[in-house]
Amino acid sequence: MSKEFLYTEIANGIAAQIRSGALKSGDKLPSVRTLCKEHQISMNTAKRIFLELESQSLIDSKPQSGYFVSASLAITLPLPEASRPSLIANHNEPDELISTVYENMGKNDLTLFSIAIPSGDLLPLAKLKKEIVSATRALKAGGTEYEELQGNLKLRRMIALRSLSWGGNFNETDLVTTNGGMNALSFCLMALGKPGDTIAIESPCYPGILQLATGLGLKVLELPTHPSTGIEIETLKKVIPAIDICLLIPNFNTPLGSCMSDENKKEVVRLLAEHNIPLIEDDVYGDIYFGSHRPKCCKSFDKEGNVLYCSSISKTLAPGYRVGWIAPGKYKDKILKLKLLHSTSSISIVNEAVANFLKTGRYEKHLHQLRKTLQSNYQNYVQTIAESFPAGTKTSRPQGGLSLWVEFDKNIQTRKLYDLAIKENISIAPGRMFTLQDQFENCMRLCIGLPWSEETRLKLQQVGNMAKKL
Amino acid sequence: MSKEFLYTEIANGIAAQIRSGALKSGDKLPSVRTLCKEHQISMNTAKRIFLELESQSLIDSKPQSGYFVSASLAITLPLPEASRPSLIANHNEPDELISTVYENMGKNDLTLFSIAIPSGDLLPLAKLKKEIVSATRALKAGGTEYEELQGNLKLRRMIALRSLSWGGNFNETDLVTTNGGMNALSFCLMALGKPGDTIAIESPCYPGILQLATGLGLKVLELPTHPSTGIEIETLKKVIPAIDICLLIPNFNTPLGSCMSDENKKEVVRLLAEHNIPLIEDDVYGDIYFGSHRPKCCKSFDKEGNVLYCSSISKTLAPGYRVGWIAPGKYKDKILKLKLLHSTSSISIVNEAVANFLKTGRYEKHLHQLRKTLQSNYQNYVQTIAESFPAGTKTSRPQGGLSLWVEFDKNIQTRKLYDLAIKENISIAPGRMFTLQDQFENCMRLCIGLPWSEETRLKLQQVGNMAKKL
Repeated sequence: MSKEFLYTEIANGIAAQIRSGALKSGDKLPSVRTLCKEHQISMNTAKRIFLELESQSLIDSKPQSGYFVSASLAITLPLPEASRPSLIANHNEPDELISTVYENMGKNDLTLFSIAIPSGDLLPLAKLKKEIVSATRALKAGGTEYEELQGNLKLRRMIALRSLSWGGNFNETDLVTTNGGMNALSFCLMALGKPGDTIAIESPCYPGILQLATGLGLKVLELPTHPSTGIEIETLKKVIPAIDICLLIPNFNTPLGSCMSDENKKEVVRLLAEHNIPLIEDDVYGDIYFGSHRPKCCKSFDKEGNVLYCSSISKTLAPGYRVGWIAPGKYKDKILKLKLLHSTSSISIVNEAVANFLKTGRYEKHLHQLRKTLQSNYQNYVQTIAESFPAGTKTSRPQGGLSLWVEFDKNIQTRKLYDLAIKENISIAPGRMFTLQDQFENCMRLCIGLPWSEETRLKLQQVGNMAKKL
Repeated sequence: MSKEFLYTEIANGIAAQIRSGALKSGDKLPSVRTLCKEHQISMNTAKRIFLELESQSLIDSKPQSGYFVSASLAITLPLPEASRPSLIANHNEPDELISTVYENMGKNDLTLFSIAIPSGDLLPLAKLKKEIVSATRALKAGGTEYEELQGNLKLRRMIALRSLSWGGNFNETDLVTTNGGMNALSFCLMALGKPGDTIAIESPCYPGILQLATGLGLKVLELPTHPSTGIEIETLKKVIPAIDICLLIPNFNTPLGSCMSDENKKEVVRLLAEHNIPLIEDDVYGDIYFGSHRPKCCKSFDKEGNVLYCSSISKTLAPGYRVGWIAPGKYKDKILKLKLLHSTSSISIVNEAVANFLKTGRYEKHLHQLRKTLQSNYQNYVQTIAESFPAGTKTSRPQGGLSLWVEFDKNIQTRKLYDLAIKENISIAPGRMFTLQDQFENCMRLCIGLPWSEETRLKLQQVGNMAKKL
């Protein structure tokens, strides 16, 4: 085992213990010397491990005393239980609620806790503008021509290169670009599903996916999902004869922020391939992990081309550019045909700009900063919730992504909370939006992609105070 | 009747006579004096009429002799007959042929007679670049944010304003932007059609529409279509009980270049509304007319919101920007929902750039020039075809648009011609691509959107010589 690998393994192990709560705030960590002995590593390596954990704000050093689990991690709230949706595919759309929430988002001066995208304040806007200008200069005919059908070659090469870090191991021919992540999912569902087919998804689930699936005439089977570890494999096994497609967000999904273990990812891939059920994997949040390394994907374990891997830069770089992609495995021809017919070509200018941005290496730097900001936001959110939300409030413990799932006492209806909050120009996403069943009425999703400020804190407090009144 | 109106009426009347061939090349026109008497107009008005016709290259003045029908119009070839497809909806897709043609388009140094878009050489590239740069400056967060769902407000206002010229009379709330024209058609078909429904279209028809319809599980009923005047109303009446949706390109459609009369447009709208059959109108070529004024649309006569009007700037300004729109009438809610689910948002930067370009008035100037170029191209194509194509070759007589339809003698198979031409780096579009039936094997579509040059002429000659050998 290489030194570097060992180092990462140990650091991750400790981080996981802290995040899971096995090591609690204020707990003393083993000394540098003990760590050396235990793992047979050098002093230098041991010190690097502590430095890494410190840089992640997981531990603090106290002069002459050693390392302690960070005080700012003190506040963890109880975790909601895993969801228990009915396993009969049913269909009770929260359309009206979703429409209301989306329509109100157009209001001015709104504090947008309801939408899972990073605020413009967290994005490298000046550098992106430069890349747009360069793209209009570099592209043939200034970007007014159609791109090749599969998409910008440079961009596909960069995505392929980045996929090496999580075992995607793509090459450029494996990829097809799309107009953002939803367009990627839409092509996958159109390629695979026919009306009456059943699709298995996480529960709670991103409302766009629910509406897309039902809009295409699919039946939706919601799977029990744990807020930290994702879907339950045992249940998937049971329902497998009843499903035709599976769609998962295995890494830091919205709204829960859960992340499946490698083991579970591998098992899901094996199981679905065995039954010839295609898996659509949405990995838009995979790059914004709070820990020390990027999690793998289901696609990392896909030997048969049965996983259609979808991602985008909408959650990390520029939502409005609509730059996304699919690695469609054995369904590539179908996806290419759909792309030709439904959108003809991606938009050259934004795709070229993003390709060049990725090429400069600026994307990695930006992600590094964004991850830190989001992790620190998460901690600030939880602290504020602990201070000012009703007693008994539970929250998910995302280790990446843009979402925090909040569960109130059964008596607190988040639809009502929504109505109160929107009057104060605060938008939240009520839990009922994330299911086709009668559940999550006492839950809500908060976006942690806003810049943290005294104002954000006050708005969040205000939501808490309103909830207390309910 | 106003003077201005009278002037336009008379000029158009003469232009129509020339284009239809009633007045032939070299024919002497009535004198200025005679025109004054006949129509009771002033000498000045009569002179303006001749000047207008001269500027359209329809007539030439000869000193001391008067005005004559232009010599360059001399060459008109016989018109193909109206198509006679079977009226039973059937399905014999030319998929393989279409794939071959599209795949080969990626080749370098190809003379692209096969794709109906204007060459970059005919587009205002420098001004568009400037608008892109301005857009990244003007937009909030540099265009990285989602747009409002209905699309860029400024763009919708400009489209609404321009629609006044043909009786569209939109306001901004009537419009929804899309990622280009195909995306507009795709949303309309997804909103209206369910598998097994029957859609009536022109024959020959744009292959993208055929594939989109069959891809969504629709049955396709091809209507007999005249190369100059479009679909036959009498046949539409007969088949109306068998159809669920109708999709037409009434103005300068591809591949024929036909244009329906106002009367026929009005009647189609009335007929379909009476039977509650929605009409999808694709008007992407409406702005590139060769005559003196823009034709009306079916939408001009739509009182009940039954027409879903689709258009874009892909055929006139910047194909690669993918900026299109729908005026969906009473289907607006459905279209908005589809847009939200399948693409989330249009791409802010290109939409803002196009909006501003339209606002400066540059678009009108550009269109004016483009129309002249295309009309002159058409005449050059026909002249070259007359000179170097096999005897008996017929062509359509488009009065706008980007397409010229060529019909050879029955023995000349354009699939074979395609194979020969592509070896010489020339791409044509064989007629069989434009139908789901066994017809048009001896036809092809030529794009007239290439800049005319000695090279273009030689390549076209080359196609003619290859056809002669077949």
